[in-house]
Amino acid sequence: MTSYEPTPEDRFSFGLWTVGWQGRDPFGEATRAPLDPVEAVHRLAGLGAWGITFHDDDLIPHGTAQAEREAHIKRFRQALETTGLVVPMATTNLFAHPVFKDGAFTANDRDVRRYALRKTMRNIDLAAELGARTYVAWGGREGAESGAAKDVRAALDRMKEAFDLLAEYVTGQGYDLRFAIEPKPNEPRGDILLPTVGHALAFIDRLERPELFGVNPEVGHEQMAGLNYPHGIAQAMWAGKLIHLDLNGQSGIKYDQDLRFGAGDLRAAFWTVDLLESGGYEGPRHFDFKPPRTEDYDGVWASAAGCMRNYLILRERAAAFRADPAVRQALRDARLDQLVQPTLAPGETPQRLLEDRSAFEEFDVDAAAARGMAFERLDQLAMDHLLGA
Amino acid sequence: MTSYEPTPEDRFSFGLWTVGWQGRDPFGEATRAPLDPVEAVHRLAGLGAWGITFHDDDLIPHGTAQAEREAHIKRFRQALETTGLVVPMATTNLFAHPVFKDGAFTANDRDVRRYALRKTMRNIDLAAELGARTYVAWGGREGAESGAAKDVRAALDRMKEAFDLLAEYVTGQGYDLRFAIEPKPNEPRGDILLPTVGHALAFIDRLERPELFGVNPEVGHEQMAGLNYPHGIAQAMWAGKLIHLDLNGQSGIKYDQDLRFGAGDLRAAFWTVDLLESGGYEGPRHFDFKPPRTEDYDGVWASAAGCMRNYLILRERAAAFRADPAVRQALRDARLDQLVQPTLAPGETPQRLLEDRSAFEEFDVDAAAARGMAFERLDQLAMDHLLGA
Amino acid sequence: MTSYEPTPEDRFSFGLWTVGWQGRDPFGEATRAPLDPVEAVHRLAGLGAWGITFHDDDLIPHGTAQAEREAHIKRFRQALETTGLVVPMATTNLFAHPVFKDGAFTANDRDVRRYALRKTMRNIDLAAELGARTYVAWGGREGAESGAAKDVRAALDRMKEAFDLLAEYVTGQGYDLRFAIEPKPNEPRGDILLPTVGHALAFIDRLERPELFGVNPEVGHEQMAGLNYPHGIAQAMWAGKLIHLDLNGQSGIKYDQDLRFGAGDLRAAFWTVDLLESGGYEGPRHFDFKPPRTEDYDGVWASAAGCMRNYLILRERAAAFRADPAVRQALRDARLDQLVQPTLAPGETPQRLLEDRSAFEEFDVDAAAARGMAFERLDQLAMDHLLGA
Amino acid sequence: MTSYEPTPEDRFSFGLWTVGWQGRDPFGEATRAPLDPVEAVHRLAGLGAWGITFHDDDLIPHGTAQAEREAHIKRFRQALETTGLVVPMATTNLFAHPVFKDGAFTANDRDVRRYALRKTMRNIDLAAELGARTYVAWGGREGAESGAAKDVRAALDRMKEAFDLLAEYVTGQGYDLRFAIEPKPNEPRGDILLPTVGHALAFIDRLERPELFGVNPEVGHEQMAGLNYPHGIAQAMWAGKLIHLDLNGQSGIKYDQDLRFGAGDLRAAFWTVDLLESGGYEGPRHFDFKPPRTEDYDGVWASAAGCMRNYLILRERAAAFRADPAVRQALRDARLDQLVQPTLAPGETPQRLLEDRSAFEEFDVDAAAARGMAFERLDQLAMDHLLGA
Repeated sequence: MTSYEPTPEDRFSFGLWTVGWQGRDPFGEATRAPLDPVEAVHRLAGLGAWGITFHDDDLIPHGTAQAEREAHIKRFRQALETTGLVVPMATTNLFAHPVFKDGAFTANDRDVRRYALRKTMRNIDLAAELGARTYVAWGGREGAESGAAKDVRAALDRMKEAFDLLAEYVTGQGYDLRFAIEPKPNEPRGDILLPTVGHALAFIDRLERPELFGVNPEVGHEQMAGLNYPHGIAQAMWAGKLIHLDLNGQSGIKYDQDLRFGAGDLRAAFWTVDLLESGGYEGPRHFDFKPPRTEDYDGVWASAAGCMRNYLILRERAAAFRADPAVRQALRDARLDQLVQPTLAPGETPQRLLEDRSAFEEFDVDAAAARGMAFERLDQLAMDHLLGA
Repeated sequence: MTSYEPTPEDRFSFGLWTVGWQGRDPFGEATRAPLDPVEAVHRLAGLGAWGITFHDDDLIPHGTAQAEREAHIKRFRQALETTGLVVPMATTNLFAHPVFKDGAFTANDRDVRRYALRKTMRNIDLAAELGARTYVAWGGREGAESGAAKDVRAALDRMKEAFDLLAEYVTGQGYDLRFAIEPKPNEPRGDILLPTVGHALAFIDRLERPELFGVNPEVGHEQMAGLNYPHGIAQAMWAGKLIHLDLNGQSGIKYDQDLRFGAGDLRAAFWTVDLLESGGYEGPRHFDFKPPRTEDYDGVWASAAGCMRNYLILRERAAAFRADPAVRQALRDARLDQLVQPTLAPGETPQRLLEDRSAFEEFDVDAAAARGMAFERLDQLAMDHLLGA
Repeated sequence: MTSYEPTPEDRFSFGLWTVGWQGRDPFGEATRAPLDPVEAVHRLAGLGAWGITFHDDDLIPHGTAQAEREAHIKRFRQALETTGLVVPMATTNLFAHPVFKDGAFTANDRDVRRYALRKTMRNIDLAAELGARTYVAWGGREGAESGAAKDVRAALDRMKEAFDLLAEYVTGQGYDLRFAIEPKPNEPRGDILLPTVGHALAFIDRLERPELFGVNPEVGHEQMAGLNYPHGIAQAMWAGKLIHLDLNGQSGIKYDQDLRFGAGDLRAAFWTVDLLESGGYEGPRHFDFKPPRTEDYDGVWASAAGCMRNYLILRERAAAFRADPAVRQALRDARLDQLVQPTLAPGETPQRLLEDRSAFEEFDVDAAAARGMAFERLDQLAMDHLLGA
Repeated sequence: MTSYEPTPEDRFSFGLWTVGWQGRDPFGEATRAPLDPVEAVHRLAGLGAWGITFHDDDLIPHGTAQAEREAHIKRFRQALETTGLVVPMATTNLFAHPVFKDGAFTANDRDVRRYALRKTMRNIDLAAELGARTYVAWGGREGAESGAAKDVRAALDRMKEAFDLLAEYVTGQGYDLRFAIEPKPNEPRGDILLPTVGHALAFIDRLERPELFGVNPEVGHEQMAGLNYPHGIAQAMWAGKLIHLDLNGQSGIKYDQDLRFGAGDLRAAFWTVDLLESGGYEGPRHFDFKPPRTEDYDGVWASAAGCMRNYLILRERAAAFRADPAVRQALRDARLDQLVQPTLAPGETPQRLLEDRSAFEEFDVDAAAARGMAFERLDQLAMDHLLGA
């Protein structure tokens, strides 16, 4: 019997803005007082987390003078040292201030784009200083509500220009830092550029230093487009680009819910953990959720603890699923073993394939069609393991 | 006053399966008799279309003997010659026969994968023979309904293997043919691999001969994921990969409707035409729609004619929009002219950017934030032009 | 040629909170300064609007002392008198203050429910005083994010109790006021009670004084559930319950966008206007939209003007559609004339129907099935009229 | 430890069309041979089911001559007698034949409407004869793809006329049968009338004999509109109208998937079972699912068994959740006990409420706002019970 108690070895990390979310939403005011970042560090450490992440403005409010800025950083550093929490990732807030209302790297206004770059470079310095290895870029305001307001091709040029510049900067500074682009289909813009994992991967391939880039897929963001999250991160892993991720919950296609991990689509959460644990993902298990605004701080910490607990339960269940001999047989019955075999024989050319009459002329299509795939039995075994039944 | 009468110069093409759809749906039987491909050619030519496209099985029913196959092709060729219709594109039916129930290039069963490759190669030969320059690949069955049934990374390996083989084949044969991968998020599978334009673009970048590949985005398929279709094709154009497309209509996130072009999201149709016409797209204007099963063949032809008419109306409106001096001023007011300017000065390095105090230290963020973007006025001008008001 | 200039005869009304929205969203701060209600009245009157509506807190900020409250009301009244604008509707803000984080009439906390009732009664007095005939109730916080947090049946009991009490109050006071319940499926709660027009209609039927209640369907709210807005209001009209409505725009299933009327699903907007104008709707044409936060106040007024302009263009187009002899013939071809005929002969009983062999035993099902419905031609005529082509 | 083996006491029923679905979908041919209804009866009985349900055409193919019809019924009856399976419900296929392409009770063609009524009456006789107590009406074709094709108010008149006639018929015949209307938002029509549970409930209230009517909500149908299924059936129960239901699974807003119960949104399934078991629902636990077309008949039976097994597992977990003292305390902490208390004191009038200064003038809004709702802890307890952790 597992205890489901997290430890730093589990590499769970949380954004400062998650437990620190005050509950302001489009129709309502804040329900919680601000949370001191230092308290967040201590509380998360106490719950068994390993890392903490931040936007520049989470740690140092927008407009803070330089001296005060240093004081903020110092206090935070001390809390990290005291608790042992690490900073695996940082990111820039390029969405909250009204100056970014039309975007940051792709704002129509050139001076806003330059300001956004500088704001990002400044926080990259801090990220590197604090030991972060990943720098997340969520372009939440890069988009439009109406058709002529954004020339998408020009905007992608500007986006590429920005990331190329940042990659040049990081390289020049010698920082050991990679960028993780976080896609989202919409909200707060009507449509956001790079709306899915796929669009972000394709964009990265056109950058000057693609090797410095990967993706940071968020559960809810892909699900807001009705997409299968485990499928999305699998394609990112296949492309060698899954360097970070945002775990949370979402109940289908609607506004961005940021529920605690496990809430929302539980079965997708199970397959997500199964894939991360069995698929060689080595990055942090990062939670990007918002404790519902119905909660006070007791609820906030209960919610954060729930994220980790659910991950650990699902990790246990996924491991049992993969280890079960009945499952292994069911996977063979479903011919998953054939899927990993190349379709072609070693060295087989198109011409050779054409010569293989068993592949076409003599292939008994109807007999092949009659074979059941045995997926339902396999999926029920997964259900049983998920439910511990 | 335009007549909105299509001519071959407009390069409108239709799939045989579109006007030939008999109206069988998940809950009902066919409502229309089969349509002879030869009649389809003549009727579409009569309506002003330029091209016709087909799946292998549209032209030559599955299981047809070789001699009869030749007869089918001959009749079709004659109809093309008589009418002057061209075949700009062809594709393979890898979804209707039960043998493909678990996929074709990514079926768990290796023999099904080999059969799928051979079926495709055979039709590629015919496509080349008929002069097609684009070969569309819609992997509608490449997917899963349950989590363990498909190892997505292994499946993508198989998909890559298949496309690499086909590209090798086309190259070896000296065919002047490029592949256009058509994404779709779901239906008929619970989740389909390469669910969006972005995923397909990213996949192409990992093929051996990416230069032979592009995408074939369908209006409804992207909209089934709630994505902005013009944004999607703009990214494909930006990547140099928009080589074909499927125009139709869809009323939001639901089953695949394949309405006639213009139906569904009319404003998205306007921006689509605007982008195609002003953005340098040179491929066919291909309609992939299904005349509703409420219609008899009069309704089928009315529906096909409507696709072209709506395109021509929207083309006229988009041109007027772009030519209107008030619009040009509104675009400047919305600073679209700044978006095409590089963010950096020529040769500007990260270091130089850091030295520009006007970009950050002396940037008046609040003043910049106060500038209105003037998007609503611009969008209302677009509405006026769309409505001819 | 119509000028599309609104006049008070068009009965256009706007919420104070629409043009007064400052642009705070879940990811960003306000982009516009507060708008004085008095200025809103003058500006809207200047644009040709007829009415203005409000939440209590729009007019009198939460926590205002009694004397100051009177001053707010007095200034507002004077602006109304000066401009001639009327107040056809008012409503209560039961969602912004954190006390309503778990709901108002269905909050788990009984004291919150009592407070919500009192807050509502207070504003009903003001609404009646200002001449409003409709009191809207949007229960945006009545809902839940998790399964055990709300006992839906108990919550509906509380909702009924609240509305019965309010109806008793209005009756007792002799106010000439009816309630219009506004449904919404989600946001700001994960799921909201009475999520659609249908659920609200069914709820009303179980109140003590159903005759005092109707619905206030909002375009975007129904579309957030993927529902057909004109169908929804048609059912409300059929039930005699469409007493008010909120016109705006929404681009499919996602967060609540509140675009200006006409933006989003333009064809649905056309059918909405067609139904309102031809179907005997006599209530206000009320806009509940949010000018995008990219806009300054010039954009706000352009956006408000656009709502009315689009309505007037669509009204003109719908009238032309209904008046066109070709459309009338197409409607007959599509047998809409048969749909208004009763299915049964006058006085026909089940027994008589059973005796009519032409209805079943001798009915030629296949011949009937072969008749085309001619819907595509009809819909293309509608498209032509919409586009003025 | 429960065995999760179903018995007739569990009252599980299946549609003939569920296990008998041959796998024909919009893009593919049947993958399974037809299933003899008699075999279905025997196999389902063997798996522990209690009842079987049918459309007329499931049992007796469309167009069967009278004598053969009797033979079909006789064989079916014998199988029922042999196995002890009951027929708790029957329904009419008013969607598969092309004659219904524009609807049945609301078809524009009057003769089609009359034919639909007769087809229904005929099967009602059989349903009554076989002992069914519920007659389901799913109007899958009652709808439209375009705006002018259906006058919704006229169509609702026709729908009411049809149901009033059928209720008169059932009453006249003395059948102990109630109708259960099954809502669905779309597919196979672009939009279907009575799209949700709410719309159906509101419609019923306007029939001549509402007491003979209830609803038959299907999990996937409500979820196709993004609605919360347990909330929907809770409102139906609150209205006294939940007389039957269709259990299955759906992965979000997309085409109708009809997955086995438990697949799709597992947490919603848990809350559904919790509500049915604790809320006094006494009807059948009816599964309306489609075994995926990847499966052969082994997979079909595995899938059917999985529906029941998942229900039983969830029933066990829900019972444990409700019995857990920690949960009971958590429910009190979340003030669910207050939600069942009336908001008003016994006999409290509006005037009395106005006089209670503690309700408003002296209510400490900010103190009340600061109370946490403790929902996250409660929901995590539910998660633990669901997962058996």
